[in-house]
Amino acid sequence: MNRESFTAGERLVSPAYVRQGSEARRSHEHLIRLLLEKGKCPEDGWDESTLELFLHELAIMDSNNFLGNCGVGEREGRVASSLVARRHYRFIHGIGRSGDISAVQPKAAGSSLLNKITNSLVLDIIKLAGVHSVSNCFVVPMATGMSLTLCFLTLRHKRPKAKYIIWPRIDQKSCFKSMITAGFEPVVIENVLEGDELRTDLRAVEAKVQELGPDSILCVHSTTSCFAPRVPDRVEELAVICANYNIPHIVNNAYGVQSSKCMHLIQQGARVGRIDAFVQSLDKNFLVPVGGAIIAGFNDAFIQEISKMYPGRASASPSLDVLMTLLSLGSNGYKDLLKERKEMFSYLSSQLKQLSEAYNERLLHTPHNPISLAVTLQMLDEHSDKAVTELGSMLFTRQVSGARVVPLGSVQTLSGHTFRGFMSHTDSYPCAYLNAASAIGMKTQDVDLFIKRLDKCLKTIRREQKRENDESGVDSEKTEDADVTEMALQLDNALLGTNTNQDSSS
Amino acid sequence: MNRESFTAGERLVSPAYVRQGSEARRSHEHLIRLLLEKGKCPEDGWDESTLELFLHELAIMDSNNFLGNCGVGEREGRVASSLVARRHYRFIHGIGRSGDISAVQPKAAGSSLLNKITNSLVLDIIKLAGVHSVSNCFVVPMATGMSLTLCFLTLRHKRPKAKYIIWPRIDQKSCFKSMITAGFEPVVIENVLEGDELRTDLRAVEAKVQELGPDSILCVHSTTSCFAPRVPDRVEELAVICANYNIPHIVNNAYGVQSSKCMHLIQQGARVGRIDAFVQSLDKNFLVPVGGAIIAGFNDAFIQEISKMYPGRASASPSLDVLMTLLSLGSNGYKDLLKERKEMFSYLSSQLKQLSEAYNERLLHTPHNPISLAVTLQMLDEHSDKAVTELGSMLFTRQVSGARVVPLGSVQTLSGHTFRGFMSHTDSYPCAYLNAASAIGMKTQDVDLFIKRLDKCLKTIRREQKRENDESGVDSEKTEDADVTEMALQLDNALLGTNTNQDSSS
Amino acid sequence: MNRESFTAGERLVSPAYVRQGSEARRSHEHLIRLLLEKGKCPEDGWDESTLELFLHELAIMDSNNFLGNCGVGEREGRVASSLVARRHYRFIHGIGRSGDISAVQPKAAGSSLLNKITNSLVLDIIKLAGVHSVSNCFVVPMATGMSLTLCFLTLRHKRPKAKYIIWPRIDQKSCFKSMITAGFEPVVIENVLEGDELRTDLRAVEAKVQELGPDSILCVHSTTSCFAPRVPDRVEELAVICANYNIPHIVNNAYGVQSSKCMHLIQQGARVGRIDAFVQSLDKNFLVPVGGAIIAGFNDAFIQEISKMYPGRASASPSLDVLMTLLSLGSNGYKDLLKERKEMFSYLSSQLKQLSEAYNERLLHTPHNPISLAVTLQMLDEHSDKAVTELGSMLFTRQVSGARVVPLGSVQTLSGHTFRGFMSHTDSYPCAYLNAASAIGMKTQDVDLFIKRLDKCLKTIRREQKRENDESGVDSEKTEDADVTEMALQLDNALLGTNTNQDSSS
Amino acid sequence: MNRESFTAGERLVSPAYVRQGSEARRSHEHLIRLLLEKGKCPEDGWDESTLELFLHELAIMDSNNFLGNCGVGEREGRVASSLVARRHYRFIHGIGRSGDISAVQPKAAGSSLLNKITNSLVLDIIKLAGVHSVSNCFVVPMATGMSLTLCFLTLRHKRPKAKYIIWPRIDQKSCFKSMITAGFEPVVIENVLEGDELRTDLRAVEAKVQELGPDSILCVHSTTSCFAPRVPDRVEELAVICANYNIPHIVNNAYGVQSSKCMHLIQQGARVGRIDAFVQSLDKNFLVPVGGAIIAGFNDAFIQEISKMYPGRASASPSLDVLMTLLSLGSNGYKDLLKERKEMFSYLSSQLKQLSEAYNERLLHTPHNPISLAVTLQMLDEHSDKAVTELGSMLFTRQVSGARVVPLGSVQTLSGHTFRGFMSHTDSYPCAYLNAASAIGMKTQDVDLFIKRLDKCLKTIRREQKRENDESGVDSEKTEDADVTEMALQLDNALLGTNTNQDSSS
Repeated sequence: MNRESFTAGERLVSPAYVRQGSEARRSHEHLIRLLLEKGKCPEDGWDESTLELFLHELAIMDSNNFLGNCGVGEREGRVASSLVARRHYRFIHGIGRSGDISAVQPKAAGSSLLNKITNSLVLDIIKLAGVHSVSNCFVVPMATGMSLTLCFLTLRHKRPKAKYIIWPRIDQKSCFKSMITAGFEPVVIENVLEGDELRTDLRAVEAKVQELGPDSILCVHSTTSCFAPRVPDRVEELAVICANYNIPHIVNNAYGVQSSKCMHLIQQGARVGRIDAFVQSLDKNFLVPVGGAIIAGFNDAFIQEISKMYPGRASASPSLDVLMTLLSLGSNGYKDLLKERKEMFSYLSSQLKQLSEAYNERLLHTPHNPISLAVTLQMLDEHSDKAVTELGSMLFTRQVSGARVVPLGSVQTLSGHTFRGFMSHTDSYPCAYLNAASAIGMKTQDVDLFIKRLDKCLKTIRREQKRENDESGVDSEKTEDADVTEMALQLDNALLGTNTNQDSSS
Repeated sequence: MNRESFTAGERLVSPAYVRQGSEARRSHEHLIRLLLEKGKCPEDGWDESTLELFLHELAIMDSNNFLGNCGVGEREGRVASSLVARRHYRFIHGIGRSGDISAVQPKAAGSSLLNKITNSLVLDIIKLAGVHSVSNCFVVPMATGMSLTLCFLTLRHKRPKAKYIIWPRIDQKSCFKSMITAGFEPVVIENVLEGDELRTDLRAVEAKVQELGPDSILCVHSTTSCFAPRVPDRVEELAVICANYNIPHIVNNAYGVQSSKCMHLIQQGARVGRIDAFVQSLDKNFLVPVGGAIIAGFNDAFIQEISKMYPGRASASPSLDVLMTLLSLGSNGYKDLLKERKEMFSYLSSQLKQLSEAYNERLLHTPHNPISLAVTLQMLDEHSDKAVTELGSMLFTRQVSGARVVPLGSVQTLSGHTFRGFMSHTDSYPCAYLNAASAIGMKTQDVDLFIKRLDKCLKTIRREQKRENDESGVDSEKTEDADVTEMALQLDNALLGTNTNQDSSS
Repeated sequence: MNRESFTAGERLVSPAYVRQGSEARRSHEHLIRLLLEKGKCPEDGWDESTLELFLHELAIMDSNNFLGNCGVGEREGRVASSLVARRHYRFIHGIGRSGDISAVQPKAAGSSLLNKITNSLVLDIIKLAGVHSVSNCFVVPMATGMSLTLCFLTLRHKRPKAKYIIWPRIDQKSCFKSMITAGFEPVVIENVLEGDELRTDLRAVEAKVQELGPDSILCVHSTTSCFAPRVPDRVEELAVICANYNIPHIVNNAYGVQSSKCMHLIQQGARVGRIDAFVQSLDKNFLVPVGGAIIAGFNDAFIQEISKMYPGRASASPSLDVLMTLLSLGSNGYKDLLKERKEMFSYLSSQLKQLSEAYNERLLHTPHNPISLAVTLQMLDEHSDKAVTELGSMLFTRQVSGARVVPLGSVQTLSGHTFRGFMSHTDSYPCAYLNAASAIGMKTQDVDLFIKRLDKCLKTIRREQKRENDESGVDSEKTEDADVTEMALQLDNALLGTNTNQDSSS
Repeated sequence: MNRESFTAGERLVSPAYVRQGSEARRSHEHLIRLLLEKGKCPEDGWDESTLELFLHELAIMDSNNFLGNCGVGEREGRVASSLVARRHYRFIHGIGRSGDISAVQPKAAGSSLLNKITNSLVLDIIKLAGVHSVSNCFVVPMATGMSLTLCFLTLRHKRPKAKYIIWPRIDQKSCFKSMITAGFEPVVIENVLEGDELRTDLRAVEAKVQELGPDSILCVHSTTSCFAPRVPDRVEELAVICANYNIPHIVNNAYGVQSSKCMHLIQQGARVGRIDAFVQSLDKNFLVPVGGAIIAGFNDAFIQEISKMYPGRASASPSLDVLMTLLSLGSNGYKDLLKERKEMFSYLSSQLKQLSEAYNERLLHTPHNPISLAVTLQMLDEHSDKAVTELGSMLFTRQVSGARVVPLGSVQTLSGHTFRGFMSHTDSYPCAYLNAASAIGMKTQDVDLFIKRLDKCLKTIRREQKRENDESGVDSEKTEDADVTEMALQLDNALLGTNTNQDSSS
């Protein structure tokens, strides 16, 4: 509503009230102005109404929403389903132009602004989360793996002779695939066991660099966030090696933004050595739907080069999601989430420690991993391989998601490469184990329910094992399983601890 | 976004594009300004984005949406469920103040504007629909019946001695109840049969006025829209009687806005005689959810008096619905709907005529009723009472809604009053019949499906009757009924005539 | 999705995963079944997805959402605007039938279920809130005032000779209007001053009953929730008088559900004496938009009689709002809100006490009023009348809503009745004062902001008064006012106390 | 609602009505079952309520929506903003698994089903649109260019020696970039001029193949949809060459699904020769937001290989959009859009022909291009280069989007490659021209407004040119420009032709 509209309004309703209303409107506008001027995440989260006003204002700047537009091109932002238009707040043109995913679209000033602001906010948050010297970043509507591929493809043009990527082993398929898809040969560096932890073998890395020759190496591809007992790579030392040998360094920081330790590694690496880009998942760090990543770095020009490698426009959806999320949370809200995650990590550790000891198992000592934990499954494993995977499926059926059992001796071949001990990041870890992680957004009740259900599962398996040992083959699980549904239905009660007795007695 | 925000935007994105965007914004603002300045329904319907922008702008003028508001009253527009807030576009304060449903709320400039504009738009549409000399109206969040009650209660204060309401009979419970609830005694004037039509007995009305004495009569309560074979009251002549005897006249125009004939009656009545207020349903005339009515009239002061009789604030929901609907349709869209309804009426008439003749029945000749039609059910009725109601329930089961069978001889007692021949508006209509109406929003496929299903039902019943006459009591309906579900599932095909064979053969 | 769909799904995706998914669906269904079977508010609030699934399931039971429906009636639930349909979750048919607002609609099984369940849930909550012996209630889509009118209109049919309503004075227009609109003569019983409190004059009530004769009295119309220094009526004693003289008793419990004290009064009144119905606002007690009320009572038949007095269908919107709200909150969530309100009341009391003493004013001692508080404005008042109202408008401009200043000597005439000392519930209260209330949903920051702003306003006025006394007429308020906008813009900071210095220094 | 819930419902509301409602529910379920069983696009579009029910049912099968889920992984589908969750219908887990974008996710049975069904529907539509023998396809949340890159990267593994991609020139940056990004060297084959058309130089292609040797060639990369006067490549003949030399063939069918001619080329090419994959944009063919593409082909195994090259999960957003769109439209709705587009193409042709002749220009004769048209700008160009680009910006300012002016002699260097005559697909096209296209979703009013505005712009420029020739340098454009805003504001009227006089006189 413009001035004339307010004046007309004053004739219909008391001027004093309309003035108060238009005054109130200014507070919303003020927040929007601050955002556009500073390009920083507001400290306090925005009200839903400010957020929607802002999105609405941006959207009507796109040509598909012009009241008088006529379109005679091949891509005019037309939408057949009004439900689809609405769920995208009428942003239809995506982001970027054919040449550059960060470029501005003449047809879509609003979407272009959205894109710029989102990247600016995300940069602000990366700084806040610990990488203070980051200089540029952009949101790309591809998962972490494909984003890593894009980085490698960009490097190819700078290092035409390179064929290899040095890669301290991490058993996660998409990390490996990201190199294969880009057309490079991963040189796997096995981890070394230090105590319970699996850590980067720096000597092996350097030896390999010397062996292959720096020019034949596209880059070192290191990893921060990972499942215990593997711990984040020694990024700092790797960065130094890269600097020394003049080799690019790409860091897979998949879900590392949520951990100050991971972010610190990157900040330090860049300070003392070389890091060309670090890539992180949007969904895993910012509680948005799967589908986006952030490519960030310390050299403006290189980050822009990557953004120019993406051919064609791209979905604005991940950018919109993270923008909405950050504006809702505010930087304070995000900080609170980080803090809470850390607390949950401690809580989960202590609970797992206690439970594991009750079963004569052990929480692996992995102090360098700030997110993931591992509990040995020695007793189970000794009994039979099957027991370990059975535990996994029992947990799944009981609606525990994300817990991961790692049996010994699993072998997997990926694009011609054979990994022994797959999932455990090493050819033969001393024992089978179970992973659990404290990721951003986790709540006390997640921990409590997990511990309770894990306890029940372990109890059941032990009982079975005992019975089998006694050669009395009665399957007690069947009756147990009948309870699962019932249990699931009672969970909401259980969640709040109101019916603890009932649950624990069932 | 204000000027500073656009300037900041120009720094992020090309100034030319941002300017184009802010230019585009002005088209939306222009439409909003026109609305507020003229208070008329726009000719062309608004785009969803203009509509939502407008509602958003209004909502942030309400104190519950002020970013810095602090509330220390007993009614602060707080909402517990964000889903509820969103579905009301964050208009929480309702409309009106304790003294007057049309009054402006200091706490809610936006809701107050919404209320004013809605009433203004609705007035515009009533004029357009045919009552050109209407001077004032307001939307009230109560159904037609309760709104009539409010009119009667208002009149009570002006006519303290009055006890009776003169009411040409119409067999619709809420009409009757509206008078009972207001505490008056309805004086029922039986209709007279003219050809097939039931029409107002003007002489009986005048005789009753003279018998009871004008001062003891609160008002005449006439009706326009009604089920055939009753036709709209002779509103013009009743208005003259009211003027002559100085008696108020309230017209129940429930679903009459959609018919130029009904509206013309009111316009003429007011021109040559006396009409104090006419009341119409929102849902039946404007395709919105049930729950609101419009009280309109020719004397500003009296309409305001009624609006001041409503004690307390009221729901803004019906006002919001009709506002959204009229802005989406535009006056042209509404006119199109009126035109289409008229065409559907002709189509339904001709189809019903044809079908009824095939069964040796007759479409009653009711040229004064512009909306509702009636087809005799003589054959059925002759056979047995039950057959008529059976037809009704067969149609219901077959997802025909709104068709109404009227058997002979139904008796109903309402608040002590006994109505013989209830539903047929007269003690004993010559025959049983079936009603169908062409109401606003009806589509060709409604008519086609109805005719097809009615045909099938009649066929089934005839067959049964024949069989019973042959004294072979096998119930064929059972097998028929088994088909109903199957049929229902095929309806979407049938709707488009693609599978006609299949449907007609089943 | 039915069994066949799941089976088809198992062919597309792993059966184990689909089974897990269909299992999960059962938890939602279980909650819905419990609700329908028990008709009670669930203890724990529902997830948004369960809620929406439930509403969706209900809506598709209404004929307007039948895929194969054909409508040939005058009211077929057609909707022109898809935005309108969506915001009502496609419930279009409203609630009730022409004869009875609680009746079931053949065309709308879903809406009918919604209506029944809502009433059942609301009854459950009223019991929980303290009126354990309530036997029936229904939600009516009208504000409290109009709902009281409906009660009076219903009583009229039972007491044809009655002309008067005995009404302990409360200065709230819609209370008074509710009687006038119903066509009765309110007999105002002045309150008596006990300490600072204004309380029911029981003797005057009884004297009036005797004077007028019980048969000429429609009912006693008492009030619980009200602005201090008036306190809730002595409902218990009034109920006894009503029982003794065989007079109906209607209690206006507008925003009393939120206070256990108000609810206790009603519970006790019904136990020891007579209460026919008590009426409460939906919005003020359940944090939903304005527009609905609950009419409740202890005699099933009488409550049904009232529901049958509402002529015609009615909006389902208020019912839908309260249903969504209660299912989201759960009874535990609602109890938490009640508890929090009580705490806020204590906090507001202590803060107001402290502030008032700093200005040599006094928090009135009104221990019987559990919601509203009053602070004297003696100093202001001594200076000039204008100062009191000026404080009111200063607070309004500073986005304090709901604070109410009550000057001395205001006179108001309502429908021929003159009220001296209007707003103060008595002809001449000893001093001017300011009201503030702790209503459900209030937050600490509401109190803090209010106290801060009130402090600033009082300071400003005192300064002015001093200056005027010094006969130096410089208006400092102007410069003050320029700060208001600025201040408003800083409020979000202020809200969290981050910039306290800045705010207090401005 | 399950059986028990309905039974409970029958106790609250009449059993007959509840049964009718539950019967009605079955029609929705029936449609869902058919979809899951057949995997085909329904002929008739679904009702919004069926669509939302379906999405809701799928979503509650994902673990993040399990009521009793506890998550202890690093990716648990948590969402911080409820607005974000809602706009994704609570599908948070994306599609695919780390190894394969088409893989099923254990945590997300609903999202997995969504993915499978979408791909199945899209395959159905590709067949319907003309490529009957397509055997497999999948939606990928990347634009066409990046999707082409993925195809090239997949081929790399099969053709390790290949360095070149044979590419008949098309001046669209992302096509070129798609090859560069994948790390290959595009071998540009210049087009030949036949009449006005620019067509594939088949001889040059074959010569190049022989020159470079088939093994060094990754693939031929041909194009269907393009801007006139370039026309779709001779795909059939290219496919034969590819078959003969055993070279893969990737077709960029960006916006070709909407044209039966483009689809026919592909179908024929695959029949008589070799096509490995063809890639099309989601937004340009299916009226959804930018961000997705479909990779399709005739060899199941190869398409699966591509899907396995995408490392990591991906956004479900484009899949969801196209699913919602196709279910809303139904195949009949989509066919109607295709038909309408064809008609608009004829209309646009004839209107452009007429207008161009009025200005002594000419519609280029490009019968092989079914979508794009070109009009000469000879007069403008003769006068000055600037005039051509000025026309472009005048059209932009007047809210004509998608019209493209192509001046002569533009030179552009992309990744080291210099293109003379850039934008015109050839080093030196005989004349400057203007492009306009008839794309899916275009309406008559788009054409009419475009012609009207183009006419005005040409008139203005001619006038200026004349004036400049007369050496009277008064800039009339300034006053013209002042009208633009005014004009924009009147557009909604103009759109419906109501105010033609006003518009043409301004």
